Amino acid sequence: MSEHDRTLYAGVDIGGTTTQVVLCDDDLTVLARAETGTPAARGGQAMIDAALGALTPLLRRVPGRLAGAGVGAAGVVDSAAGRILVASDSFHGWAGFPVTAAVADALGVPAYLDNDVNAFLRGEVASGAVRGERDVLGIALGTGVGGAVWTDGRLFAGPHGAAGEIGHIPGFGDLGCTCGGRGHLETLASGRSIGARYAERTGLRRTAREVADAAAHGDEDALAVFRAAGAGLARAVVMTAGLVDITTVVIGGGVSRAWHLLEPAVLARLAEEPPVSGHPVRLVRAGLGTDAVPVGAAALARLGTTSDGGARPALSASARER
Amino acid sequence: MSEHDRTLYAGVDIGGTTTQVVLCDDDLTVLARAETGTPAARGGQAMIDAALGALTPLLRRVPGRLAGAGVGAAGVVDSAAGRILVASDSFHGWAGFPVTAAVADALGVPAYLDNDVNAFLRGEVASGAVRGERDVLGIALGTGVGGAVWTDGRLFAGPHGAAGEIGHIPGFGDLGCTCGGRGHLETLASGRSIGARYAERTGLRRTAREVADAAAHGDEDALAVFRAAGAGLARAVVMTAGLVDITTVVIGGGVSRAWHLLEPAVLARLAEEPPVSGHPVRLVRAGLGTDAVPVGAAALARLGTTSDGGARPALSASARER
Repeated sequence: MSEHDRTLYAGVDIGGTTTQVVLCDDDLTVLARAETGTPAARGGQAMIDAALGALTPLLRRVPGRLAGAGVGAAGVVDSAAGRILVASDSFHGWAGFPVTAAVADALGVPAYLDNDVNAFLRGEVASGAVRGERDVLGIALGTGVGGAVWTDGRLFAGPHGAAGEIGHIPGFGDLGCTCGGRGHLETLASGRSIGARYAERTGLRRTAREVADAAAHGDEDALAVFRAAGAGLARAVVMTAGLVDITTVVIGGGVSRAWHLLEPAVLARLAEEPPVSGHPVRLVRAGLGTDAVPVGAAALARLGTTSDGGARPALSASARER
Repeated sequence: MSEHDRTLYAGVDIGGTTTQVVLCDDDLTVLARAETGTPAARGGQAMIDAALGALTPLLRRVPGRLAGAGVGAAGVVDSAAGRILVASDSFHGWAGFPVTAAVADALGVPAYLDNDVNAFLRGEVASGAVRGERDVLGIALGTGVGGAVWTDGRLFAGPHGAAGEIGHIPGFGDLGCTCGGRGHLETLASGRSIGARYAERTGLRRTAREVADAAAHGDEDALAVFRAAGAGLARAVVMTAGLVDITTVVIGGGVSRAWHLLEPAVLARLAEEPPVSGHPVRLVRAGLGTDAVPVGAAALARLGTTSDGGARPALSASARER
């Protein structure tokens, strides 16, 4: 087969500040990637135009036949309708925007939409750190904490598309959460919370990355903040193992760059408090980095264009920006 | 069609002290029921013999053709192998006993096994308070707290059959649990714990039923114990809604007889702390009483004899006796 006959899938990750695009082959190997700023203040069409503007040179450069395109987006999305339902305040003209229609019109191929955390987990299962696994919890530690659940070999969305919200269930102490709740994992393990918890202990305003750097230099307050984040993550694993019976948890997002701090903290707490079933849960760091969401979106497009089932869950919700 | 041509399913619930048997028609209407003591100390064959002894007069009395039999049993069961894996200490010669082989041999029809909490939920979905619903959390408040999850119209067992263990995940305070963990729902909402929590407050040893009676007479300590149980149940609902996105929770077991105490306590807390998705979860009291487990077991037999899929999850775990 000539490479000009090769089937290609495009994947797009529209984040709050940056839009990532990839072009994959049929095995979801990334053949080319690009990024551009997200013009979040300029409306839905501008955001799609920016993504297409980044994608077009890749399509010119890489030989093959584009079969479909997937989009991962922050916010609450209606995958079946291909629209954003709820977006954070920084996105103007995004809620209600017909994402898949705009992409499909421009590219002339079927387009698919999912929220970014679902796409992250789909990407890691399709070709990342948990490739081929069937029962996985995905946790994205960004500004907020997003979650997604993969069970019996597919994304588990639930009747309202609200499943997997590990960042926003109670049982993690009593701190107030950005969503209005209390005692959520996000209050311990998000980038924003790691900064806030450090500030409470020290009076110093630091980013999560700066807190991680301080911990690496032996700062006891910084170490305590990451131990609490790790303990919260361990509790999230035990809860999910008890309710959903996962075999593996994959953790990604910017905060997971401090893996040398998080991993021992999570494992120490899991050793103290294992899942009640007695079946251990494997802890894995995400493998695809910033490719995870766009590759997962491309995987959704591959699923949608090669099968009838599963590619269009009714709804899905993202917590990345909560 | 003559009633002699009618298809019948037998359902058996082998509990720690009592064994319940039912004979159902194809719609899972209970045509006859009986109960007998469980000879738990005398071994697996004695327990099966007792169940068959209760069932035989029903089979003589009710015209029709028996198509299958289901058994619900406390403990950890291997549904695929039809055996008990782990039983509580009060059961002798039960772990490892080939339950379905013994029943199928005696009755000459296919036999199926599940744990009692899964059977309870299957019964309530098949013909009880949540008939026909697709996404339900079932909670059995007995000596311990058992849980089971029904998603997208079927029992969700998970890869190890360990899903649905709402009674034994952390996030419910810090009290020590019978399973060795801490802060589990069982420490607040089981019959045993309601007695224990009341004793801690008052120094008085009372059963859960006696605590409920005291609450009905305005005993502030008894009321506080039930409020805490209800708050724990509400938290369980919010956690499960966030992770699994259920629409409904059905609560059964002996403690649910104090529904007039539990329902307002759960609803009050759910009003304060609703699921983060914004989708409310309906709270329902179980409708089948002691029929739920045997009817659910009969429903499993109906599923198994009329389809290829779903009747034999690999494993399932019960928490009723934990």
